[in-house]
Amino acid sequence: MQNALAYAQAHFDDFVDELKDLLRIPSISTDPAYNDDVLRAADWLVDHLHHLGVAHAEAIPTDGHPIVFAEHFVDEARPTVLVYGHYDVQPPDPLELWDSPPFEPVIKNGTLYARGTCDDKGQLFMHLKALESYFKTEGQPPVNLKFIFEGEEESGSEHLPPFIETHKEQLAADVVVISDTTLFAPGVPSITYGLRGIAYVEVTLTGPDRDLHSGMYGGAIENPINALARLIAGLHDENHRVTIPGFYDTVLPLTDEERATFRALPFDVKAWAGEVGVTTTKTEAGYTALEGTSARPTLDCNGIWGGYIGEGAKTVLPAKASVKISMRLVPNQTPEEITEMIRQYFETHTPVTMQLTFTDLHGGYGVLVDTKSPAMEAAAQALEGVYGQRPYFTRGGGSIPVVADFKNILGLDSVLMGFGLDSDAIHSPNEHFGLDRFQEGIQSIIRFMEIYGSRS
Amino acid sequence: MQNALAYAQAHFDDFVDELKDLLRIPSISTDPAYNDDVLRAADWLVDHLHHLGVAHAEAIPTDGHPIVFAEHFVDEARPTVLVYGHYDVQPPDPLELWDSPPFEPVIKNGTLYARGTCDDKGQLFMHLKALESYFKTEGQPPVNLKFIFEGEEESGSEHLPPFIETHKEQLAADVVVISDTTLFAPGVPSITYGLRGIAYVEVTLTGPDRDLHSGMYGGAIENPINALARLIAGLHDENHRVTIPGFYDTVLPLTDEERATFRALPFDVKAWAGEVGVTTTKTEAGYTALEGTSARPTLDCNGIWGGYIGEGAKTVLPAKASVKISMRLVPNQTPEEITEMIRQYFETHTPVTMQLTFTDLHGGYGVLVDTKSPAMEAAAQALEGVYGQRPYFTRGGGSIPVVADFKNILGLDSVLMGFGLDSDAIHSPNEHFGLDRFQEGIQSIIRFMEIYGSRS
Repeated sequence: MQNALAYAQAHFDDFVDELKDLLRIPSISTDPAYNDDVLRAADWLVDHLHHLGVAHAEAIPTDGHPIVFAEHFVDEARPTVLVYGHYDVQPPDPLELWDSPPFEPVIKNGTLYARGTCDDKGQLFMHLKALESYFKTEGQPPVNLKFIFEGEEESGSEHLPPFIETHKEQLAADVVVISDTTLFAPGVPSITYGLRGIAYVEVTLTGPDRDLHSGMYGGAIENPINALARLIAGLHDENHRVTIPGFYDTVLPLTDEERATFRALPFDVKAWAGEVGVTTTKTEAGYTALEGTSARPTLDCNGIWGGYIGEGAKTVLPAKASVKISMRLVPNQTPEEITEMIRQYFETHTPVTMQLTFTDLHGGYGVLVDTKSPAMEAAAQALEGVYGQRPYFTRGGGSIPVVADFKNILGLDSVLMGFGLDSDAIHSPNEHFGLDRFQEGIQSIIRFMEIYGSRS
Repeated sequence: MQNALAYAQAHFDDFVDELKDLLRIPSISTDPAYNDDVLRAADWLVDHLHHLGVAHAEAIPTDGHPIVFAEHFVDEARPTVLVYGHYDVQPPDPLELWDSPPFEPVIKNGTLYARGTCDDKGQLFMHLKALESYFKTEGQPPVNLKFIFEGEEESGSEHLPPFIETHKEQLAADVVVISDTTLFAPGVPSITYGLRGIAYVEVTLTGPDRDLHSGMYGGAIENPINALARLIAGLHDENHRVTIPGFYDTVLPLTDEERATFRALPFDVKAWAGEVGVTTTKTEAGYTALEGTSARPTLDCNGIWGGYIGEGAKTVLPAKASVKISMRLVPNQTPEEITEMIRQYFETHTPVTMQLTFTDLHGGYGVLVDTKSPAMEAAAQALEGVYGQRPYFTRGGGSIPVVADFKNILGLDSVLMGFGLDSDAIHSPNEHFGLDRFQEGIQSIIRFMEIYGSRS
């Protein structure tokens, strides 16, 4: 392993140059105008995998963008690691806010700027360079490896779950490793062991069959905006708990150990809130801000609209009002049950003067990974080896649907070993990835393979 | 008077032809592209007034569109009637929904179709034809007359109040007569004796300084949409009464006589609601729908917006949310006091996590006219003479700001003697005015002049 670590140090500039080649391909999956570029990025990866010496690599067509699958078998006695990543990127708009072109990577002060540096080409590439470091020094890596690199993560991953379903055997492994998350803070290693699920719905209340004059009808025809506001307000109580009957019934409570871990995290809530311009947080009674944003379910309106929204005054009593509502879920809430509960809530409370239109927009499961599994312990030791301190186990507030898919379809836990930072501007102009973290990631993965590979 | 009434019957086709000429001028006051047409309509009216034999008529320039002022003095012993109307019209959009071009008047089944037929060229023109009927038969009308025809009613009447202020002496009169309202129902005469005022505000709650990821921040950063919904919901209680402290303090209660009048109106609330697609009304507890829409103050959200309002799901915790709120006021509420009360409400209830932006968009006073004044009694007798039944005295739910201006600046009550119907599609495609009502209006005005003129 020491040779592999040293190789990665010695050849780091080459690694960065190669990554730049991949970053130059504008593999924007949401825009059909870039379909050829997405394909080109997939082919680039297959070529690179072959070039490294991986036994099998191919770009497998789907009804959308291809999925790159690769496999390198070493020894039946060794565990098999399935590495997931995605080679597609977000659109770069608004272009005028970039300091340098999004698909012409540049290094400034040790940081690499380009679309995809952090999300996720740069992080995906760390795994290939860790493998190369083994190939070039030890001949073979200490684990069996499989790779699944998706080209539709930024456009909904529509074809991934059916692909996993139909390729169960080829994807069989002992654990999944994903580098598509963040460190808790710069230099502070962490492993994400929990993610929230989601239930996302849209609700429209329709009163009159057209917009009315608020002078002629106001006072006898109930107003859909006022009615919708009342229903939304009723979704929380004064303790900022969600009032939907049954909402908390299946929530797995935080353990004392988990709460102790949360308390131990070097987290300055005032500074965190201050970074987004807020002086005071508001969390479900009895929980901290960190717990509230990752280990407790929430309900947020994501958008609301109705009536006249232009300049000035227009005296309209609108025909309808709509709201988009998402609920972040925690184990063991299911999006199906929660969606049904909020549907019931709206059906029960919609006034007799209104028609309800309820749309289930999408759902995803939350996950919790056992922090004491061999793979998690290996990851923890690997990070400790690089950072000089034991990583924190943290829970993320967002959702990575593929993690639930791997769990539900393949029965596999995922080790979320990411090296991004919240400040890396993924999905925004001037996305970047610190080269120090690129190196730390490679070193961590080399260590993880060695430690996890020698577990048996 | 009988001769005048007969003249109006005999020359009705000529009247309609002349009105068509006026309707052909697209005097759209909101669109500067039509400025010349607005001017042309003003000049047309001045020419027509001269042609009738009115002693003095001119189009007086303002900083906006001109105001047509005319004066015909008969006898110091006679009362003076100030007739208000407006010669500008709403834009005709959407053009594709018109069955015939908006500025090419056509008659179908006894109904005249064109923009402005009802609102307000057709109704304004009734006054000129009533006057003509006296000129051609009796030589002079039985009252002194002044006319003020505005060209900016559909674009905010910005220059009218200062004009009234600076022309107090020229406008001095005993009463104002306005034909810009509706009959209670076809064939059911009514005189509007009350109008509601208005206070219109816009409120924005700002939380974080940018849109946030609802997964990363949801659960600790308070959501402006949820907070705004809570504040809006708090504006009404379960009796559909407005909760703002002091809101009802100055409300002039309905008298028993007024409530009896409301009860006597031939009003089918189910049919009225059904016309706009609603099966059930909702009114402040203790009041009927008619009372609620005209004699009680209300609070309606006119527009709401915040966050992501496009297709599908976007997991944003928005930076801000906004709402437009209008309150219909009744005597003796003032827009200034009510606006201050709702400002206080929002200042008191905005959570500490949010910044409040409060904008006073506009306000107007409600009015109540003494139904027992000589002018009102004359109007009632005039309508009874035409329709064969005593008119109902009704209150309108909307606002006609000029009525309050005439009261506040000139000290004059207005007689609201209108012949439109709610179904006349004013402000909509296929605006129309029944020729029967055009004739009824002329006959009513001829009768009003005679009855009111002989009061002394």
